Amino acid sequence: MNAERVGVELGERSYSVLVGRGMLAGLGQEVRSVVDARSSRAFLVVDSGVPSSQIDALSGSLADAGFVVSSVSIEPTERVKSIATYERVLCAVASSGHGRVDPVIGVGGGIVCDIAGFVASSYRRGVPIVQCPTTLLAMVDASVGGKTGVNLAIEGGGLLKNLVGAFHQPRLVCADAAVLSSLEPRQMRAGLAECVKHAHICATVGHPDLGGWMKEHLDGIARFDGGPLDELIARNVALKASVVAGDEFEDPGAPAGGRMLLNFGHTFGHAIETIDGVVPVGRCYDGSVVGLLHGEAVGLGMLAACRCAENLGLCDPSIGERLKATLDTLGLPARAANLPGTGEIIARMGHDKKAMGSTLRVILPTGEGRCAIVEDAAPGAIAAGIDSIRG
Amino acid sequence: MNAERVGVELGERSYSVLVGRGMLAGLGQEVRSVVDARSSRAFLVVDSGVPSSQIDALSGSLADAGFVVSSVSIEPTERVKSIATYERVLCAVASSGHGRVDPVIGVGGGIVCDIAGFVASSYRRGVPIVQCPTTLLAMVDASVGGKTGVNLAIEGGGLLKNLVGAFHQPRLVCADAAVLSSLEPRQMRAGLAECVKHAHICATVGHPDLGGWMKEHLDGIARFDGGPLDELIARNVALKASVVAGDEFEDPGAPAGGRMLLNFGHTFGHAIETIDGVVPVGRCYDGSVVGLLHGEAVGLGMLAACRCAENLGLCDPSIGERLKATLDTLGLPARAANLPGTGEIIARMGHDKKAMGSTLRVILPTGEGRCAIVEDAAPGAIAAGIDSIRG
Repeated sequence: MNAERVGVELGERSYSVLVGRGMLAGLGQEVRSVVDARSSRAFLVVDSGVPSSQIDALSGSLADAGFVVSSVSIEPTERVKSIATYERVLCAVASSGHGRVDPVIGVGGGIVCDIAGFVASSYRRGVPIVQCPTTLLAMVDASVGGKTGVNLAIEGGGLLKNLVGAFHQPRLVCADAAVLSSLEPRQMRAGLAECVKHAHICATVGHPDLGGWMKEHLDGIARFDGGPLDELIARNVALKASVVAGDEFEDPGAPAGGRMLLNFGHTFGHAIETIDGVVPVGRCYDGSVVGLLHGEAVGLGMLAACRCAENLGLCDPSIGERLKATLDTLGLPARAANLPGTGEIIARMGHDKKAMGSTLRVILPTGEGRCAIVEDAAPGAIAAGIDSIRG
Repeated sequence: MNAERVGVELGERSYSVLVGRGMLAGLGQEVRSVVDARSSRAFLVVDSGVPSSQIDALSGSLADAGFVVSSVSIEPTERVKSIATYERVLCAVASSGHGRVDPVIGVGGGIVCDIAGFVASSYRRGVPIVQCPTTLLAMVDASVGGKTGVNLAIEGGGLLKNLVGAFHQPRLVCADAAVLSSLEPRQMRAGLAECVKHAHICATVGHPDLGGWMKEHLDGIARFDGGPLDELIARNVALKASVVAGDEFEDPGAPAGGRMLLNFGHTFGHAIETIDGVVPVGRCYDGSVVGLLHGEAVGLGMLAACRCAENLGLCDPSIGERLKATLDTLGLPARAANLPGTGEIIARMGHDKKAMGSTLRVILPTGEGRCAIVEDAAPGAIAAGIDSIRG
């Protein structure tokens, strides 16, 4: 298969991420090579937005490799990323006669990969999962690292993102850039926000060149040109892979912050992402768009974190200014309208998974390509961060 | 604390099982010693059948040790052991403000311990779980070893037992025999069935004395006398602990069968356990009892397995005859009425978690205190096993 293989080194749980184009149609043999010889079935959890031609190509390849293929389709929204959908998929998997050595295969964006992974982690207390991310965001983030889960809706508490789930490493990830051609530009831009995030932690996690490379190729990236895009995916997967390899389970005591650094922009972002009626503000948004995509919320969250860090004297204002210019070049929002009160947003940040007991942790920039974990940041600084993104 | 400590050796996931009497009222400090220093909350998942005096004693002890205590109550049935209950408990845990280092504490029988453990395994992708089993069955089986989960109800497929779950080792198990005094005799006897199961594999797993010891003390055990009962618990926890230590994740390739041996009687048992209208037959059952307890089904399943093994020439008829006599002494059924057709029961056995691809695995006795895993046992022998327990 003509693809770059990026390794995720986790001892006996190590696996490869295939990065290239046109691989889905030949994936059957790759899947066969990572499962038990007795495996006879494959269950696809499919994003309803993925073109059926791609699903057919994948299914055919799996059948050629000796798998009986069953599937279920999900229309992915944050409300659908629920325990109810998790149960629906589990029932479909069980009804298909899926055995303990048979793989579940997620084909879709982050929501579908997360649900498929959680199902695989818990069906018969764990079956193999193969991830085929079909969005840029899922390729560079959700599909690599084994985090799976769904949201939890609690009375009066809105939607708590990814509050339920498991660590369950995939056997294989297939990041096929050819499938991105059917992706909406807004979804592509949202994926680029996670790459921008990686550029902001690159020096801290041992990939110091990523920021400079991205700056150099920013215009091509903003146009979604094939060459820079494919290299962007491979570079970002490599960064994610090495962070995961150093801190598989997001240990609170991991050196230099470990995996928690990947949450740069996420504590602020998660708090505003699921609020009804919030509207992104910027040149790509004409007022008809309501609600934030995950990547958009992360972009805003990173800006808020920069302003918070600046307020605490942790970094120079130039970090936030350059971030704002980058987001603008990529067509991502730098402000959002209809945000609730600052107190409410701070309360919602406390529900984020990084909250540890009653302490609020945030990841803040400390320099070019550098971030650090800050415990108990002053509420005034956090408020200044939030207020800086109001539109 | 005046208790025997049985160690479960799993490297960094090692923990102790406390076996003794009257420990719940002093458990707060024990819990404190196994969680992160920042832990400030404890969430109790409580079996509605546990006397409130014991819950109050435990809660008071936890409060004295600095935990803010919240709880939810569950009326335990196999139908209630569902994804819906799992979600209800998760919402209660989230609403309490439970953090990533805070323990969930299961207080109840196997159903409650399994649900509490699965919630803890997946809330924020894993928080500590402490198990306080309150039935004999949960003490010697469900609470030790990290298996957690719920049942899955699929259309036309009935209730698939423990089809969804996770391996999540507890930080501590407290087997307080004092709480057994409030247990119904039928529940006690069902727990003894798992001890009988252990006696049937004891030589294979390195505890060859258990069978003889149990035979010697069988009358005292059948009367639930304190002395033999406490030693029975400690001996059975020790056997379970060593099997788990040798095969934490039930690896299909574990030497000598590993943890899968603990499923002796369970492939047959699970298939008949959740069928409406089945009635145990025996001197303790007057016809008013409908439905089988898990331990009763395991007792019947062991008898069916003995008959199946005898049919295959794997063991002498005396193994099954002695088992039948033991079940009779302990007041457990040796037959059940209203069982469905043999073909349906075999089909249900295929849904058991030990099914691997299309192969049906059963655990069969091969001698005194010895069992082995048998792949693809002849359907005729399995049918003979099933027919031998029809009442």
